Amino acid sequence: MKHDRRSMVARVLLLAVSLTLAEQALAQSDPLPSWNDGSAKKAITDFVQATTTQGTPKFVPPAERIATFDQDGTLWVEHPMYSQVMYCLERVPALVKAKPELAKVEPFKTVMSGDREAIAKLPMKDLEKILAATLTGMSVDQFNAEVKAWLTSARDPRWKRSYTDLTYVPMQEVLKYLRANGYKTYIVTGGGQDFVRVYAERTYGIPPEQVVGTAGGTKYGYGKDGKPFLTKEPKLLLNDNDAGKPQGIHLMIGRRPYAAFGNSTGDRQMLEYTGAGDGARLMMLVMHDDAKREYAYGPAQGLPASKVGTFTQALYDEAKKKGWTVISMKNDWKKIFAFE
Amino acid sequence: MKHDRRSMVARVLLLAVSLTLAEQALAQSDPLPSWNDGSAKKAITDFVQATTTQGTPKFVPPAERIATFDQDGTLWVEHPMYSQVMYCLERVPALVKAKPELAKVEPFKTVMSGDREAIAKLPMKDLEKILAATLTGMSVDQFNAEVKAWLTSARDPRWKRSYTDLTYVPMQEVLKYLRANGYKTYIVTGGGQDFVRVYAERTYGIPPEQVVGTAGGTKYGYGKDGKPFLTKEPKLLLNDNDAGKPQGIHLMIGRRPYAAFGNSTGDRQMLEYTGAGDGARLMMLVMHDDAKREYAYGPAQGLPASKVGTFTQALYDEAKKKGWTVISMKNDWKKIFAFE
Repeated sequence: MKHDRRSMVARVLLLAVSLTLAEQALAQSDPLPSWNDGSAKKAITDFVQATTTQGTPKFVPPAERIATFDQDGTLWVEHPMYSQVMYCLERVPALVKAKPELAKVEPFKTVMSGDREAIAKLPMKDLEKILAATLTGMSVDQFNAEVKAWLTSARDPRWKRSYTDLTYVPMQEVLKYLRANGYKTYIVTGGGQDFVRVYAERTYGIPPEQVVGTAGGTKYGYGKDGKPFLTKEPKLLLNDNDAGKPQGIHLMIGRRPYAAFGNSTGDRQMLEYTGAGDGARLMMLVMHDDAKREYAYGPAQGLPASKVGTFTQALYDEAKKKGWTVISMKNDWKKIFAFE
Repeated sequence: MKHDRRSMVARVLLLAVSLTLAEQALAQSDPLPSWNDGSAKKAITDFVQATTTQGTPKFVPPAERIATFDQDGTLWVEHPMYSQVMYCLERVPALVKAKPELAKVEPFKTVMSGDREAIAKLPMKDLEKILAATLTGMSVDQFNAEVKAWLTSARDPRWKRSYTDLTYVPMQEVLKYLRANGYKTYIVTGGGQDFVRVYAERTYGIPPEQVVGTAGGTKYGYGKDGKPFLTKEPKLLLNDNDAGKPQGIHLMIGRRPYAAFGNSTGDRQMLEYTGAGDGARLMMLVMHDDAKREYAYGPAQGLPASKVGTFTQALYDEAKKKGWTVISMKNDWKKIFAFE
């Protein structure tokens, strides 16, 4: 008996030693190798250090560790057009084939003309018609299958690569680093929730239940075989932009994030809401200032106001005033894409 | 060098042995001690065995292991009234104090009269007015604080115990057993999502982000201190009953559950939707047939149709036809409450 007990104690001690060694090895390697040293990188590692060191005032219990990430422009390229909009435009021919009467109706007529300039000029109202027609009216399973198929063949116009290759390596590192430290990582996107869920797990390691996005209603019905299925309806439940982001976070997560990452005015309220919590909070904005490696459309590019994108001067000023960290793609990121 | 390597190998081997021993110890102890042996208990353990044994056709990858549970009548007592309705009724005096003009207006006048019979007879339309008035119009933080405070003092009329003491021990065991086998457990309730989130983590070990319920909209605004906050609005986003359950599951989780537990017609579509998936699926209905230890209001109680509750004969017939498992509280559960 005594011998057995001793061997068990030895085993537990050995296990503890192994775990400690493993922890030290992890701590010594750089979790953010694609980031240059600087205030942005330091803000991230300081935040993780502060919120995960037990017994310190800013410690956050693991269950409460929530981090939210905008997608377009924050985790992957959003120029020259959101990939979801590309999907919808490229779906139009199939739609017209199924309903030939649409060929003569705007805005489908313009899309079918292939006139890129005219398509780019379509007003928001027309774009919404295209989105509704291509994102709803089919079963959830059918939609998932169509997006999946599209993603395997679709290529972006500049790099001629799959859209899922256009994620930012430094942000992938942040996702992994936060998860390794007990954070649940969520996407909180203005894009379609169902669209992003199709590839989020494979692309970012984020499961469908951790994707919050613009979401529509569904209808429950039965097929000829008696099996139930859900049909995507054009009814909007959540517009996950601007104030819709904290609303979506409350609806889908029910906790205030400790860290939030965005890149545009559509993320402003999410960052404000995150920053209004107690303790250590991390608010970061990706600024697109690297025309060579990606694009430059931020406020600090010397661009005339009309050319500044969704990261406006007002957002830049709010960030500076509130102590949010602005990430310069040009200066803070050693590497942007995995294929570089 | 060689010595170091050997000691590392030895350490890893010891660790593997320790884990194997721990696993065997777990496997040998009964994970469902409050369940009598029988087809219900066996359905649960068979399902877990089938879906977690690697290399077998019914194996489910850990990321896809989702189990959903109705709350009222499935995880805790729902008679004589849903605890959330009790909360709303008991909030009316504070509401009338803040807005004295309501004292003369129905249905608040009836609630203030304290006439239990008249209150029980209030039509659904009046009940909805009371719910809207007591569940909305305040900030999310204020609502959470009020529900939390109410729960510490509120007592159910029969056992004179806190509502959170009235959870079913056998179902708590199922929650833990599924989680120990890699399942994410969700509550999918017709009750208010925000209401249930206040106590779900403490009571069931289910975090707020895994509570799906009837949900309303919120409004984003700023306080006098400039801090943003969300106000609960009377706008209904999701009625999480009947077809609303699969709709809510799609909206909030985005995956079809492998196991679903309910007790009423409000859970029918959730069980149908779960059962329509491939592979091993577990659909269970808790039948209230134990008037002595709890209540009897199921279809098999010899009650006249008018006295049968929300577990109707039609639901019982569908369960039998589709191979769903009906749990008899009387026969399948050794113990119902922790305080017994």
